[in-house]
Amino acid sequence: MKRIFALALLSFLSVSATYSQVNQDSLMVKKISDDIFMNGTAYSNLRYLCKKVGPRLSGSAGAALAVEQTARMLREAGADTVYLQPCMVPRWVRGAKEVGKATMRDGKQMPLNIVALGNAVGTPAAGITAEVVEVKSFPELEALGMEKIKGKVVFYNFRMDPRHINTFRAYGEAGIYRSQGPSKAASLGAIGVIVRTLSPVMDDNPHTGATRYDEKIPKIPAVAISTNGAEELSKAIAANKVKQVYIKTNCQMLDDVLSYNVVGELKGSEFPDEIITVGGHLDSWDLAEGAHDDGTGCMQSVEVIRALKAVGGRPKRTIRAVMFMNEENGLRGGTKYAEIAKEENKKFIMAMESDAGGFTPRGFGFTANAMQKEKILSWKPLFHPYGALEFNEGGGGADIGPLRGLGTALIGLNPDSQRYMDLHHAKTDVFEAVSERELNLGTVVMAAMVYLVSQYGL
Amino acid sequence: MKRIFALALLSFLSVSATYSQVNQDSLMVKKISDDIFMNGTAYSNLRYLCKKVGPRLSGSAGAALAVEQTARMLREAGADTVYLQPCMVPRWVRGAKEVGKATMRDGKQMPLNIVALGNAVGTPAAGITAEVVEVKSFPELEALGMEKIKGKVVFYNFRMDPRHINTFRAYGEAGIYRSQGPSKAASLGAIGVIVRTLSPVMDDNPHTGATRYDEKIPKIPAVAISTNGAEELSKAIAANKVKQVYIKTNCQMLDDVLSYNVVGELKGSEFPDEIITVGGHLDSWDLAEGAHDDGTGCMQSVEVIRALKAVGGRPKRTIRAVMFMNEENGLRGGTKYAEIAKEENKKFIMAMESDAGGFTPRGFGFTANAMQKEKILSWKPLFHPYGALEFNEGGGGADIGPLRGLGTALIGLNPDSQRYMDLHHAKTDVFEAVSERELNLGTVVMAAMVYLVSQYGL
Repeated sequence: MKRIFALALLSFLSVSATYSQVNQDSLMVKKISDDIFMNGTAYSNLRYLCKKVGPRLSGSAGAALAVEQTARMLREAGADTVYLQPCMVPRWVRGAKEVGKATMRDGKQMPLNIVALGNAVGTPAAGITAEVVEVKSFPELEALGMEKIKGKVVFYNFRMDPRHINTFRAYGEAGIYRSQGPSKAASLGAIGVIVRTLSPVMDDNPHTGATRYDEKIPKIPAVAISTNGAEELSKAIAANKVKQVYIKTNCQMLDDVLSYNVVGELKGSEFPDEIITVGGHLDSWDLAEGAHDDGTGCMQSVEVIRALKAVGGRPKRTIRAVMFMNEENGLRGGTKYAEIAKEENKKFIMAMESDAGGFTPRGFGFTANAMQKEKILSWKPLFHPYGALEFNEGGGGADIGPLRGLGTALIGLNPDSQRYMDLHHAKTDVFEAVSERELNLGTVVMAAMVYLVSQYGL
Repeated sequence: MKRIFALALLSFLSVSATYSQVNQDSLMVKKISDDIFMNGTAYSNLRYLCKKVGPRLSGSAGAALAVEQTARMLREAGADTVYLQPCMVPRWVRGAKEVGKATMRDGKQMPLNIVALGNAVGTPAAGITAEVVEVKSFPELEALGMEKIKGKVVFYNFRMDPRHINTFRAYGEAGIYRSQGPSKAASLGAIGVIVRTLSPVMDDNPHTGATRYDEKIPKIPAVAISTNGAEELSKAIAANKVKQVYIKTNCQMLDDVLSYNVVGELKGSEFPDEIITVGGHLDSWDLAEGAHDDGTGCMQSVEVIRALKAVGGRPKRTIRAVMFMNEENGLRGGTKYAEIAKEENKKFIMAMESDAGGFTPRGFGFTANAMQKEKILSWKPLFHPYGALEFNEGGGGADIGPLRGLGTALIGLNPDSQRYMDLHHAKTDVFEAVSERELNLGTVVMAAMVYLVSQYGL
């Protein structure tokens, strides 16, 4: 009886302890949230990054300025160490504005609203002029075969499927035409490629983004056309009105140049060798301010340092905010970070990335082992008041992906995806498209997760 | 044994039936969703309402045109009956642009960025000129008392608390100064009121919105000042620089005029006398296109009719899409709808309102009895794929509130609240601030809920 009572008491105490712990955690998360909403600097930092630094494609002057300025921001946020990780990055330049037009059988001309795809080769100085063949899929392309493709420009007119609730799914399906389309067309003798812009909205903004040439196949020029432009061109082709298209691009890949990841560290008080990485990518496409892609992820990561220092002083484990360079067209920064991590004699316990826009948070996607998962899921109720309700398996982020080899748990912030693809890689990805509260709320849940891992490990 | 087996079999069959039913429901919801994302008209209808009709304050020409045009939209959506419910509405007019300025002790003048509050009386033709007293709360006002308030202009500078995750909570706290502030100040002898704009963002857009005079107290002019303007004025007051303020408004309340609720009906095939109401309010403030407030709710309600007809023909129970008139400054439309409902010999089983913006849906708030709640909650998993995860008690909508007396279950769509207050009642509430996909996703969950109730009753 006594023993049973003792057990019951123990069990009661343990429940109490857990309850009180949960309660304390929940109060701490609230404290973090309040601080971010009252004193947050992510939004003003983002304004600076977008308006004073602007586009920052790898190897550009903008990227160099971004390195300098985010190092400053990390110092101002209270990081105790701020340093740069050198890495060589590709340097692709767009050159003068692209020109595209379709010449009709009746002699009239229709301008094509195009931009070169990132990493693409340019056209010869005279541009390319050829017949255009529209296809909706790779099987359709292959069915046409070399006979019908050789010497032509291939127009991939695959519409992003609006029925997928998560727009990243539609992006994944349609993205293969941008990444693999040029080489697939070239393998059948095509001399150029036009890809319908990856966007669910109908407008006049062509979206750029990286293409990936197969090195065994001749590299041919490749452009994106706006969604409105794609519809217009498709209609003209269907009416058999188009004689040929003309494309002139001025882009080229130059030699690699030196660039950097920017790292800001808050050293752990109890387990300084257990490292929590939180980051976004600092490079953006050249057409845009790179607000949602991925200025927001960078500024949120800086803010995690500021907020955790503001509410609690020194975390138990080391927190590193990392601005990864070259996510868009090479992933050299993420690769370098993992390379260096392998050589450091430390435990990289968790890495989080925010690279899906600074929209209102819906939850997290995580790639982790069973024990890590269990722990992460045990914290789920703490995120309920902040609307981060969806904890899904799978996900992380491109830049932190290479850390997986170290057994690091990867966590990706999953914001609401409805608006992201409207502006992704387009000139409309500007500071004004970011909501201060949505950005802050995303930071709150990132900081809360980082706090919990820093407190309890994984 | 036999009996146990039979019971087990029955239970198995019943589970199977339930499973298969859930499966069918889930397929139907997917069909609704696909149709809305492929063929939806809410966005283009909203463009028309915002750009061709525009502001539509009760009693204005815009409101009359909105009645006509939404009746057309309901017919085009496939409603089998479209009719108007006449109701008298107040007609408040702003008149010429307001003028506000502060005169400093050094003779300089500082313009005040103001707009008259809705329903407010105007100033005398010469405007009002008086000393200004800043307060942060009603207790502070009352502590100053008549001696310090009499003959002055009261400036309520209560900042919306950014720490509340749901911005409606902050709006509720701060909103009392707009609604009750003028009469409370007048009861102490004030001759005018300036209220800090109800917005979490710092900008130059004053937000209007209704004030409510206490009929026993003299009505004094009342304006909102932009958040930036409030900060500037507050600083000048704190520095003891302000001698007096000048306010000139030209608004007035005219006689009531005839207006209408617009109703479109899809008659139920099995239970035509069980009515499901789904609506938004058609009137908007005069400064704005009323995109999120509440063009989106109206266009979503029209779309519910279109989509349900498109996927399933005729529902079992009658669905009524209602564009309520005069939510903003009188609620006459909602009151009239309930009055007529009481006289109809029908069962008003459920009413849903979308009046919190056309943002990505988070879930629903409902006011219902225990049985209704149980049924609504049993459908929750069907909404998971669409991100409507939060089913909370409490809520509904201003226009459907008066139906509660009939035992009607009230359901409010709860979209994400982060961006709403930035533009609510301000000139920035325009079509361009609405995301097509967010709007459609909200409609999907509305249509799904209406479908389930129409299929199974409540």
